[in-house]
Amino acid sequence: MDFSDNLNPIGPPPGLPELVAEAAERGVYLRFPANLAEEVLAQYEGIEVVLFNGATEALTAMIAALRPKRLLLPWPTYSDYVRIAGLLGLEVVRGDLSSLVGRAASGDLLLLCNPNNPTGSVMGRDEVLELGRALEARGARLLVDESFLDFVREESAAPDVPVVKSYGKILAAPGLRLGAALGRVRPDVKSPWRVNSLADYAIYNIGAEALKRHREATREYVAAEGPRVQEALSRCVEVVKSRLHFFIVRGWTDKVKVRPLDDLGMPGYSRVSIKRREEDDLLIRALCGA
Amino acid sequence: MDFSDNLNPIGPPPGLPELVAEAAERGVYLRFPANLAEEVLAQYEGIEVVLFNGATEALTAMIAALRPKRLLLPWPTYSDYVRIAGLLGLEVVRGDLSSLVGRAASGDLLLLCNPNNPTGSVMGRDEVLELGRALEARGARLLVDESFLDFVREESAAPDVPVVKSYGKILAAPGLRLGAALGRVRPDVKSPWRVNSLADYAIYNIGAEALKRHREATREYVAAEGPRVQEALSRCVEVVKSRLHFFIVRGWTDKVKVRPLDDLGMPGYSRVSIKRREEDDLLIRALCGA
Repeated sequence: MDFSDNLNPIGPPPGLPELVAEAAERGVYLRFPANLAEEVLAQYEGIEVVLFNGATEALTAMIAALRPKRLLLPWPTYSDYVRIAGLLGLEVVRGDLSSLVGRAASGDLLLLCNPNNPTGSVMGRDEVLELGRALEARGARLLVDESFLDFVREESAAPDVPVVKSYGKILAAPGLRLGAALGRVRPDVKSPWRVNSLADYAIYNIGAEALKRHREATREYVAAEGPRVQEALSRCVEVVKSRLHFFIVRGWTDKVKVRPLDDLGMPGYSRVSIKRREEDDLLIRALCGA
Repeated sequence: MDFSDNLNPIGPPPGLPELVAEAAERGVYLRFPANLAEEVLAQYEGIEVVLFNGATEALTAMIAALRPKRLLLPWPTYSDYVRIAGLLGLEVVRGDLSSLVGRAASGDLLLLCNPNNPTGSVMGRDEVLELGRALEARGARLLVDESFLDFVREESAAPDVPVVKSYGKILAAPGLRLGAALGRVRPDVKSPWRVNSLADYAIYNIGAEALKRHREATREYVAAEGPRVQEALSRCVEVVKSRLHFFIVRGWTDKVKVRPLDDLGMPGYSRVSIKRREEDDLLIRALCGA
């Protein structure tokens, strides 16, 4: 049993697998992608959406376009940000959020993962916009990664600050490579073909309403099952509680697969994700014994 | 009839559509991509291959990693290079190849499309390596885009110079978003998930031998049909002859779709591509009348 990823515990939206199969049968990949999924995702988000082949490409392009000198990373966070900074030749400054704001200087870009991976902490929209203003006052800027915002009832910070996100997590389909920037972007950020034709076809044809229903079902499930598992686990291990479908525990087990956090400077801690109820009971037994 | 793209005129490799459909049926996109296609493509190329979601992402990452001050573009060439330069904040210098070499300075990167799109001109490996040395002598560097090299009998310049390429053209499957860098790359150029799972599954399972047979069949077809069409057309319009499956003509028609080259500063000229023989006869009739 694998509790180490952070995909949607209720799986993909109903109908998505059939549409991906239909896209393959129709040979849509023999044509250039039409970027039609952007229309549907714009309805889903209530704001303009620019697609990328996964959040990684979206982040790289958006950071490159902002041309910062340094990348400020509230730590711990998603480790691939450090690789992207290296690729773009940016100095990385790690720290807690308030100290980073205090150290922010002209040309700096603070990259906020909200909700944060792996801690599961969530900032409200107002708080994010206030952070943006505080950075702006120092000549610095803010970029927000909202890859996990669909899992909780919070509003996006877009279009007031630039936002990128992954759709692979909420769709439980990371192999589609579907990411985005929300709101207006500079024209040269948009590549001519922004996502593979199979994903483009499936998202265009599933429609915004089906995606909204899936987001709602996901939020309901996470809001109920997350606290149940965290409460059960907190009887035997230290749990850093979160409103997300993943959270940090002080502990590790070899009975099921969890995500150790040694590489983020948190030895002895692991990130675990909720799955279906029966599976979560296995996680509880693995960490709490018998 | 559409002669405006530059996809493989003989279509995708036999078996590829079935494998994409199989990948969709098996739900491989519900898992993170395994990047297994890199093994097969390394056998196909005879050199290490790092995958990207299309040549666009490969180019952006490789140029970002090389951190040039200016991008030198032998003109005319693929217009998306200019967009990527804008995204990365690079000054673009256009010119003919020899004048660009003469003007190359420390920190410059010359991006050579070989074979070139849209002209179809081809430089041999030795000539490319000599160009690389001439640039190096001036403190500048060379990056080669070999997206169309599979269509002619020429050797890659990799690993002696950095090379990027698209596989969408030779596979006639641009919607798969499959591009690559050839040879060793800096570790931070490799993203954790480099291509969608459907493309990854299909390429891994088709195997290197099937891809090599398809390359061979493509080269044979292009070497025979290309000259036939160019010769027929040259009786009625000016043809800039090429060894590729596409070439430039002085002329335009509204009877079939061609690629006008006004945006590249060549008003009155069009790029046309060969397709199957019967279709090519339509192109000949459209441009030559009756």
